[in-house]
Amino acid sequence: MPDGRTTVATPETGQNKSLLATTVLVGTAGFAAAEVTISGSARMGITNAYDTTNDANKTQFSSRARVNFAASGETDGGLSFGASFRADNAGDANSGTAGTVSLSGAFGSISMGDNDSAALTTVGQVDGVGFTGNGDLNEIIFLGEADTSALYTYTMGDLTIAASMGQIDGDTNYTGNAKQAASVAASYKMGNYRFSAAIERGDKAVYSFSDRADAYATDPEDTYAERNDLTSQVTLGADATFGALVLKGRVAMGSGEAYNGLPDEPNGYKTTGTQVAVSATYTMDALSVTAFGAHAKVAYDYYGTDWGMESTRYGVGASYDLGGGAKAQAGLSRLSHDALNDDGDWSDTKMDAGLTFAF
Amino acid sequence: MPDGRTTVATPETGQNKSLLATTVLVGTAGFAAAEVTISGSARMGITNAYDTTNDANKTQFSSRARVNFAASGETDGGLSFGASFRADNAGDANSGTAGTVSLSGAFGSISMGDNDSAALTTVGQVDGVGFTGNGDLNEIIFLGEADTSALYTYTMGDLTIAASMGQIDGDTNYTGNAKQAASVAASYKMGNYRFSAAIERGDKAVYSFSDRADAYATDPEDTYAERNDLTSQVTLGADATFGALVLKGRVAMGSGEAYNGLPDEPNGYKTTGTQVAVSATYTMDALSVTAFGAHAKVAYDYYGTDWGMESTRYGVGASYDLGGGAKAQAGLSRLSHDALNDDGDWSDTKMDAGLTFAF
Amino acid sequence: MPDGRTTVATPETGQNKSLLATTVLVGTAGFAAAEVTISGSARMGITNAYDTTNDANKTQFSSRARVNFAASGETDGGLSFGASFRADNAGDANSGTAGTVSLSGAFGSISMGDNDSAALTTVGQVDGVGFTGNGDLNEIIFLGEADTSALYTYTMGDLTIAASMGQIDGDTNYTGNAKQAASVAASYKMGNYRFSAAIERGDKAVYSFSDRADAYATDPEDTYAERNDLTSQVTLGADATFGALVLKGRVAMGSGEAYNGLPDEPNGYKTTGTQVAVSATYTMDALSVTAFGAHAKVAYDYYGTDWGMESTRYGVGASYDLGGGAKAQAGLSRLSHDALNDDGDWSDTKMDAGLTFAF
Repeated sequence: MPDGRTTVATPETGQNKSLLATTVLVGTAGFAAAEVTISGSARMGITNAYDTTNDANKTQFSSRARVNFAASGETDGGLSFGASFRADNAGDANSGTAGTVSLSGAFGSISMGDNDSAALTTVGQVDGVGFTGNGDLNEIIFLGEADTSALYTYTMGDLTIAASMGQIDGDTNYTGNAKQAASVAASYKMGNYRFSAAIERGDKAVYSFSDRADAYATDPEDTYAERNDLTSQVTLGADATFGALVLKGRVAMGSGEAYNGLPDEPNGYKTTGTQVAVSATYTMDALSVTAFGAHAKVAYDYYGTDWGMESTRYGVGASYDLGGGAKAQAGLSRLSHDALNDDGDWSDTKMDAGLTFAF
Repeated sequence: MPDGRTTVATPETGQNKSLLATTVLVGTAGFAAAEVTISGSARMGITNAYDTTNDANKTQFSSRARVNFAASGETDGGLSFGASFRADNAGDANSGTAGTVSLSGAFGSISMGDNDSAALTTVGQVDGVGFTGNGDLNEIIFLGEADTSALYTYTMGDLTIAASMGQIDGDTNYTGNAKQAASVAASYKMGNYRFSAAIERGDKAVYSFSDRADAYATDPEDTYAERNDLTSQVTLGADATFGALVLKGRVAMGSGEAYNGLPDEPNGYKTTGTQVAVSATYTMDALSVTAFGAHAKVAYDYYGTDWGMESTRYGVGASYDLGGGAKAQAGLSRLSHDALNDDGDWSDTKMDAGLTFAF
Repeated sequence: MPDGRTTVATPETGQNKSLLATTVLVGTAGFAAAEVTISGSARMGITNAYDTTNDANKTQFSSRARVNFAASGETDGGLSFGASFRADNAGDANSGTAGTVSLSGAFGSISMGDNDSAALTTVGQVDGVGFTGNGDLNEIIFLGEADTSALYTYTMGDLTIAASMGQIDGDTNYTGNAKQAASVAASYKMGNYRFSAAIERGDKAVYSFSDRADAYATDPEDTYAERNDLTSQVTLGADATFGALVLKGRVAMGSGEAYNGLPDEPNGYKTTGTQVAVSATYTMDALSVTAFGAHAKVAYDYYGTDWGMESTRYGVGASYDLGGGAKAQAGLSRLSHDALNDDGDWSDTKMDAGLTFAF
């Protein structure tokens, strides 16, 4: 090895079936243990979507394949460092808006890039259904943050705390202020229970909200509308395991100022938003079944009139573990959107059935 | 290995020169044998193109480098699953329009994503020339299909059958109908012979045809024009090996309805298209030489006048195997385009010389 | 291994901490030793930029993660071939405008793709500062070349020579000529000294110059403005190592024809450009400190008036090696732009502090 490079052994015995995972070691002369790990995931199946607004019923083939790079190393002083991003996000990872770069040690872990906020990381979501997620209607909306963001986490036994901050001096928002968001969160495990809480605070119209801003949206993902107007939110979570049954619940309460969809016409009226989501997953050997329910409501005063909208969602699904990283999964989810004082109600139903693979 | 991860051995012996291929094992705790394999290809050389339409003679450096990910695993029940895509297609692979995801077992193999159609997969093309392909003028045009598509293949000894279907409920075409395409195909090996046949059927103006729609195209790839009007095609193939000589032939006969290039003015006239391609490749040790010839003709009635166009193509090339995955390759191909009842004739000549590498 | 594939050994001993680097072997039956190596880099930290033009002071999180593929093989005749590109450049690597493909042997090495020119490859730059480079103000501007380019290098003991050429018959430039650039260069090592020289020659307005064309640019990178008008440049470099101290110096002298920013109004006046850059880096164990200074001046006759602009840049920085591929780095750089006969002067200051990781 005159050039300082070492090469992977390749014995004739072939693949060791008992392996759980393998790491690809790479590096440069002088590095003790830097490495890049490659993993992947894929899925294939059929999806169906029906929405009442367009009276459209659409069935499609659906497939997806991904590869993830995870690089890690250790300083002489024992700090761990690493980076992780998906191949399809390599361009954004290069500019700091996808994947993450991290440093961790006794002080905890700090990560930069496309982090989930402290709130989302810590509280998380209740269980979803289907091989595609069927619109992820189980999810509550967090305020989010602009990338490049920073996330700090620290674990002391059963307690984990986290704090995050979106990009400093980011692009300005509707009203000319820099978009800025921050959150703090904590979770605590008590035997079979896990409790979590988070506070998020953002500037008016943080970008990640305005993506989904239209109160009269016809896309289910836009249902918790006017949430772009929410500038603070408190989220609570509780998970409980009773033998084969796992229950999860989330509640979020937010407040802010309404814009009525017109960026340059803030009306100053207070907006309030509440979200609830619960799920139950029961596992029998290789089979697990999941059901979830969720509700979101936004209320505000629209030139003297009580206004707002609410969505009610539920879903049921099953997953069967085929072993080796493969699962068969099917799910159905439904969303009903009710615009208060308005006839813009609609509903959307999604179904899927397919296979998911982890490599 | 407290975290369930195992690491690649790195003996001091270095690289084993007798290795044929190596697999990178990755995965997650609980997977028996999921793995991601990395391979690559590259090429470098000089190309020259001359077309009479622009009287343009252009010489250029040409290089290309690719990496491919191939992930695979096996369920407890013995089914194989996998995914494959190129690094440069990672984004499309994530949305199901590049690469493929597959499941295979005793029932055959089903694949979703950016499949070749059953017709193309089974019948295939005659041999081409050059390190770049020189415009792939050896290829006949198949009707194609929109992705995410599904492909099923099954092999019984010397017989292979295949069926494929383009995306269900895809985007609508010119006339407002959903684009839809399907094909069935079979191949049979008899000693040194291989015979194949395929039937394709598509909606009017399936997108993959209209890419090459213009009857008066100046790009050689557009020569088999008005093939966007072809809605069904039958393709036959025969391969024969006589010692060092391999002969291949393909015939395709299609029919459809002409549009005259105006999407909203179908004239209802019947279009017929015929294609023929033949190749001969002779191998002497490391050297192989290839020649091909091809012809395509589209005919239709244009407001009472017989109309159409035809192309005649040929090519010659040589490839020298340098060992280790490297080849030196050079080729020349020429296309003559003859627009019936029109003076829009032109021809195009492409030459290249370079190296191809497989990793 | 009936399919000719060999698999990586995965012993129970886990990761060997003394490893310096590892190679992922891949390939196809029949290849002796083709392989793809994966490596990566990442960085995270804080940046600050202040420019007088906008009186804007901006502080931001900054992170980046990259993965690189390096493929290599060897022909039966002992020639080495390879390809290299970053995951985020996979698309451009597929079209020959990112990464490189190369062949090397006793004749030297020839590379195609997104090469640095012979001048840049051979002379290189003086040392920069900071974990992000802080605008790379240490760098002198080379004329550059359009890709797909070709680069030839040959080393005889202490002497290295190089020649490069941009894409042949590339896109046309402002005046309708094909953009074309070429350079030749040589470097010679004499004990602790290294000397280098390069000559570049390009068509008028080679694209890589016009990117930075505006004489009144407010971006520091545009300071050596009107360099789009430079069509030839001679560059000299000298490096010297005195124990822990490394000194580097670069001088470039260019000439061309001024365009005044209007592509279709060449005024025919001669432009001259001079650049100087020097750096000193002193290393004490894990710590190294760097300072650089640079100056660039462009002068031309603007309708009878002496015109031009100059920039003065300097920077200071420190880097601390944390081991394992990690470094802590901080830097400050400043640019002052002086437009001769004009009041468009401005300055820009950049600072950063962060960590860099190599995997």
